[in-house]
Amino acid sequence: MAILSPVAWRTPPRQYGAWETVAGNIAEGLVARGWDVTLFASGDSVTTARLHAVVERGYEEDRSIDPKVAEYLHIPEVFEHAAEFDIIHSHYDFMALAYSRLVKTPMVTTIHGFSSPRILPVYRKYRDGYFVSISDSDRLPGLNYVATVYNGIDLSLYPFQAGGGEDLIFLGRIHPDKGVHLAIEAARLSGRRLVIAGIIQDPAYFEEQIEPHLDGARIRFVGPVDVAGKNHLFAGAYALLHLNTIPERFGLVLAEANAAGVPVIAMDLGSCREVIRDQVTGFLVKNAGEAVGCLERVPQIERRACRQRVEQCFTMDTMVQQYERVYAAVLGLEAKKMA
Amino acid sequence: MAILSPVAWRTPPRQYGAWETVAGNIAEGLVARGWDVTLFASGDSVTTARLHAVVERGYEEDRSIDPKVAEYLHIPEVFEHAAEFDIIHSHYDFMALAYSRLVKTPMVTTIHGFSSPRILPVYRKYRDGYFVSISDSDRLPGLNYVATVYNGIDLSLYPFQAGGGEDLIFLGRIHPDKGVHLAIEAARLSGRRLVIAGIIQDPAYFEEQIEPHLDGARIRFVGPVDVAGKNHLFAGAYALLHLNTIPERFGLVLAEANAAGVPVIAMDLGSCREVIRDQVTGFLVKNAGEAVGCLERVPQIERRACRQRVEQCFTMDTMVQQYERVYAAVLGLEAKKMA
Repeated sequence: MAILSPVAWRTPPRQYGAWETVAGNIAEGLVARGWDVTLFASGDSVTTARLHAVVERGYEEDRSIDPKVAEYLHIPEVFEHAAEFDIIHSHYDFMALAYSRLVKTPMVTTIHGFSSPRILPVYRKYRDGYFVSISDSDRLPGLNYVATVYNGIDLSLYPFQAGGGEDLIFLGRIHPDKGVHLAIEAARLSGRRLVIAGIIQDPAYFEEQIEPHLDGARIRFVGPVDVAGKNHLFAGAYALLHLNTIPERFGLVLAEANAAGVPVIAMDLGSCREVIRDQVTGFLVKNAGEAVGCLERVPQIERRACRQRVEQCFTMDTMVQQYERVYAAVLGLEAKKMA
Repeated sequence: MAILSPVAWRTPPRQYGAWETVAGNIAEGLVARGWDVTLFASGDSVTTARLHAVVERGYEEDRSIDPKVAEYLHIPEVFEHAAEFDIIHSHYDFMALAYSRLVKTPMVTTIHGFSSPRILPVYRKYRDGYFVSISDSDRLPGLNYVATVYNGIDLSLYPFQAGGGEDLIFLGRIHPDKGVHLAIEAARLSGRRLVIAGIIQDPAYFEEQIEPHLDGARIRFVGPVDVAGKNHLFAGAYALLHLNTIPERFGLVLAEANAAGVPVIAMDLGSCREVIRDQVTGFLVKNAGEAVGCLERVPQIERRACRQRVEQCFTMDTMVQQYERVYAAVLGLEAKKMA
C-alpha cells in the first residue's frame, strides 16, 4: 500500500496543509489497522508508516526548493516503485494521473478539490481511473467515482470543551473564497468580538479588506495556528464563522470546531450542509445578515451534539474504514479485468 | 521513432522557439531519410511526420492554455504510446525524464540548455539515461552523454547573400543574457547603425536599458521577425553582434547569419567558439570594446567562407545523420543490456 502525499508542506503539516493532513491521517490509520504502508512525502515528515522521501522539505516551507522540480522528483518515485505495491492512493491532484497508465498497479485518487476549470481536461482524459470525492457536492460529472469519503480528524487532538466562551472565531486561509470579510461584517453587526486565524494566502485581500478592521481588541488577527493554537481558540469560542463565498469542498475546520463542541455558522454552499447539520451542530445561512440572526440562537445548540456528530461521521477511524472498502472494491474490479 | 517537441510554441515556431525549431528539423530530416516518425507537438504544428497532438496551440501563443496543464497532458502521451516506438527522442527538458523509467522504450534526451541550477537534481537522478549536448561547452559532469550534436539549420531558408550592407544587426531574445545593451554600446562607439530584432523576454530590461537608446534611425527595434524578416535583415547586414553575457548554449542565430554570408562578432563564452571560427567566419571577443575594434576588420572575412562553414557543420542533414548514429548506438547498447 502506497500513499502519495503532496510535498507543499510536511506530512502532517505544522500548521496549514489540508491535503497533507488527510494523507497523513489515512497512513496512520492504515498502519494502526495492520496495513504495510509506505508514505511518499517530504523528508521531514513524521509517520508510523515507512517513509519514502526524495524532497527534504515542503516547497512552501523552504523557498530554496523549486515547486516544479520537487514535483518532478517526488511524484515519479511512487510509480517507479509501483510493482512493490498492491494499490497506490494518490492525494497529488491531476499531476499523478499523468503517470498512472504507465504502471500496472491500480491507483485511487482522492480529489481534494478542483483548483481551476483549466485542470479539468486532465481529469477528463483519465476519467476511467478510480476517484474518491470528499463530499457529494464536489464532483465532476463523467469521472469514475467509486465513493465519497468524508475527511476524518484525529479526535484526540481536539478534546471536547464543555464551556466555550464569548468570541466568534474564524479559522482558515485569508482569501476571499473563505469570506473573512463576511465574518468581520457579521461580528460588527452583532457587536461580538472576532478572532481571525490562518495563513495570508491573498495579501492584497488582507491589506484591503481585513487589515483596516483590525483593532487588536474587537477584531483581532493572530496569524496561522497549530493544533494547540486551535484548541486555545476553541476554548474561548462562542461559534465558528465560516461564511465561504464559493462552494466548500469539505471544510475540515468545521469538523474540528464541532469536535471541540463549538457550534458552526456556515454558508450553505457546497459541502457545508454535508458537514453541519442545520440547527443541530450549527446553522446554515445564505449571507452575513442571516449569520447575525443565528448568533442569538447559538445557545440552543447542544455542544455535546456537535461532538457526537463528528464522532459518528468525521473520525479518522470512519474514514480509514471507508477507504479500506474502496481499496477492496478497486482490487475486486481489477481482478475482474484480469479474468 | 517518436520525437517529443515542447508545446510552448508551434513546431516549427512562427517566430521565436529554438527547441521547437530543432525538434521540427530533426523530424523533417528523418522523414526525408525514410524513417517512420511520429512528432508529438502542438495541434497546429506543420510536419511531414505523423503528428500526435493533444494540446491544440502553444501555451505561449494562447494564454487561455495553462502551461502546467498542457505539459501534463502532452508529455505522458508519448510514454502511453511508447510500445509503438523503437526509440523516443525528447526535447522536453527534465520533465520527460520523470516518465522515462516507466517504459521499456529507450529515450534519448537532447539538452537544449540548463535553465537553472535548481533543475539539476532531476538530471542527476536520471543521469544513466542517454543524453545529447548541443555543444561541448554545455555539459553537466556526471551525465551519460552519448554525443554532442550541433543544431542544424535548413540551408534553403537562408540563401547566401553576396553583397550584404552597412547595418549592424542583433537577433535574439531581448534579455540581459543576450547582451543587447552591449550591442548598443558597440554600435554607438563605432558610429554604425544597429537594427535590433527579437521578442521582449525581459520587459524591465527593455524599458531601462534598450528603449532609451532607440531613435528610429541609428538604433532601431523592429520586434520579433520570421524567416523572411531575418533574411531581410541579413541582406542589409555588415555584421551580426552577439555579445552574450553568459555562456551561449549553441546560438542558432550565429549559424543562420553565417549561412547568409553575414560575419558574426560573438562573445567568447560557452559554445560561441564552437560555432564561429575566429577570423574566418567572424570574431570572438571578450567585451564590447574588442567588438568595436573588430568591426574595421570585418571586410577581411570572406562571406563565402561563412556559408561554407555552415554547409559543412551546421546543416539539418549533418545533424540528422549524427542523430541517426546516436539512435543506432543507443539501440546497440539496449540490445546488449537485454542479452
